[in-house]
Amino acid sequence: MNESSIPHMQGPICPLPIKSYEQIVMGHGAGGKMTQDLIRQYFVPNFSNPFLLEGNDFSFVQTHQSGRIVVSTDAHIVSPLFFPGGDIGRLAVSGTVNDLAMSGGIPLGLTASFILEEGFSISTLEKIIVSMAATAQEAGVPIVAGDTKVVEKGKADGIFISTSGVAWVPDHLHIGGAFAQPGDTVLISGTLGDHGIAVLSARGELGLETEIKSDVAPLNHLVQSIVQYTRNVHVLRDPTRGGLATTLNEIAVQSQVGIILNESSIPVDPVVGSTCEMLGFDPLYVANEGKMIVFVPANEANGVLDVMRSQKFGENAAIIGRVESTPTGKVLLKTIIGGTRLLDVMSGEMLPRIC
Amino acid sequence: MNESSIPHMQGPICPLPIKSYEQIVMGHGAGGKMTQDLIRQYFVPNFSNPFLLEGNDFSFVQTHQSGRIVVSTDAHIVSPLFFPGGDIGRLAVSGTVNDLAMSGGIPLGLTASFILEEGFSISTLEKIIVSMAATAQEAGVPIVAGDTKVVEKGKADGIFISTSGVAWVPDHLHIGGAFAQPGDTVLISGTLGDHGIAVLSARGELGLETEIKSDVAPLNHLVQSIVQYTRNVHVLRDPTRGGLATTLNEIAVQSQVGIILNESSIPVDPVVGSTCEMLGFDPLYVANEGKMIVFVPANEANGVLDVMRSQKFGENAAIIGRVESTPTGKVLLKTIIGGTRLLDVMSGEMLPRIC
Repeated sequence: MNESSIPHMQGPICPLPIKSYEQIVMGHGAGGKMTQDLIRQYFVPNFSNPFLLEGNDFSFVQTHQSGRIVVSTDAHIVSPLFFPGGDIGRLAVSGTVNDLAMSGGIPLGLTASFILEEGFSISTLEKIIVSMAATAQEAGVPIVAGDTKVVEKGKADGIFISTSGVAWVPDHLHIGGAFAQPGDTVLISGTLGDHGIAVLSARGELGLETEIKSDVAPLNHLVQSIVQYTRNVHVLRDPTRGGLATTLNEIAVQSQVGIILNESSIPVDPVVGSTCEMLGFDPLYVANEGKMIVFVPANEANGVLDVMRSQKFGENAAIIGRVESTPTGKVLLKTIIGGTRLLDVMSGEMLPRIC
Repeated sequence: MNESSIPHMQGPICPLPIKSYEQIVMGHGAGGKMTQDLIRQYFVPNFSNPFLLEGNDFSFVQTHQSGRIVVSTDAHIVSPLFFPGGDIGRLAVSGTVNDLAMSGGIPLGLTASFILEEGFSISTLEKIIVSMAATAQEAGVPIVAGDTKVVEKGKADGIFISTSGVAWVPDHLHIGGAFAQPGDTVLISGTLGDHGIAVLSARGELGLETEIKSDVAPLNHLVQSIVQYTRNVHVLRDPTRGGLATTLNEIAVQSQVGIILNESSIPVDPVVGSTCEMLGFDPLYVANEGKMIVFVPANEANGVLDVMRSQKFGENAAIIGRVESTPTGKVLLKTIIGGTRLLDVMSGEMLPRIC
């Protein structure tokens, strides 16, 4: 399974001329000359970095002699491939960068494996690769290894991308879903539901056009600004599939605490809000791809809020709730009209193929 | 993209009863209650380990305070999913364990991302998960994080699995495709072509039944036995897609050396050999999934051969060739009848969806 892995390209020294194609054919996944051509022509020039160019099936990442190593992975199957504010390439890089960053650590490198459908347009593939490379550059995280496979026409949907990565976490940080404590304040980095509504809109399933753009973005710099301001961060998590409500339920269960949200404080773009209302969606259950939840002790909350608001992807950050010891494993919403309701985990299908 | 990642399961503490299904439905990929049910019911009990159970979108792996970290990834799309000697689960674990192991390092943890087709049988999924867990146990490498996505019926082919992983390489080892040197001896760990022929046979494409079993296996223990015997190892690589010939060409180019093989020394199972002859395949270009190539200085070769032959997956190991300074970037085969021919990189498609 190694021959088409990206590190295997010998770009500068391969003696054979590259043959170009307009569409993916089965031979592009066979691990021979055609696979090498595809990789040398599109992946190498875009993803180029010293780690990638070593030419093995494994790739080194930057080494640290203290701290801990974390890993993460995600498959990306979003449909359509391009949507307002992003595409599957930006999503694939941001998704894994963000999962890694939620450890408080610094992502060291990503890997990417591609499943391509026979007949897929190579110019579309190139656009996606360029977007991945730009997002990786924006995040400052190199794509160090990869793999390419091809399946027959009709056996996939154009392109699927699985990314994984590794990050370094310094010894002094202890951040995770199990570390929420009664007395913590809950912050969100910006408006909710933008990604899900942007993808639905691009799919033409809304029956209307919206100007909503996906928020898809790498959040590792925002995370670093927070953990450099204070080591006293308990939980970081990005509310993706299932939205804020599902993610907070997971944290409430992991930490065995109750989470109380103030509906009036939760930022929602007015267009997203009205679109959701029209369609019967709740923005608290709609996916985000460039937002993060932060749990810190109450005395750190205002300082962290200021730090977040000073950052590109945290401008609309807000304090949205607090942690209490009960009801254990539950999330409650104090509604705008003064009531309290239970926010449950999303059940079943809401928005398929959103990421 | 985090909510259905395997670490997110809260298996022991989730308060809701698990609902069972016979087939994958879209909701299993939506990140809510159904995704959690799938994960709690099938992934948690099989993959269970302390790293996985921490419940975040990232997962820690074992930490070392010296050495270097390597990463690798592979997508797996083999068809059929089950074949003599293995299945897509054993392949997905072995493939990434082997890519990591070829650094000489010790794999610390794997991640797995699943793309499932709506309607896929959950009992088949369970068989695959059980096989992955058994192979991970055999390798001694935990599966520490994962992700599950679902696409509509007809948009994938049952199941695709991307695995990635991280390994620790001690400072004293410097193994890679660029380190072959004139004077090195080339060894192979066993017979060639078994995996490719086993998969073709299972597909019914041979027009005949064979008793050939795939060699798919994790080779990390075999690698450790070699690097514990001698630090003086230059290249390790598993000849997967494209087979021995393509892999050696890559190494010849990376190291800028010539590689000379003795055809009479290359181990091929007689049934694989005769099947290949009948079908017009060359076993040197057929994929292997449990074999490795070893380059060591000539004076280490017999010792390494003995070590390999003492190991489960190295019983049929053999010395098959040597490295010379020329012809640079080429692989030559000394044939049984006394001639010499150039062994080129495989061009185009030979055996689609073999891994």
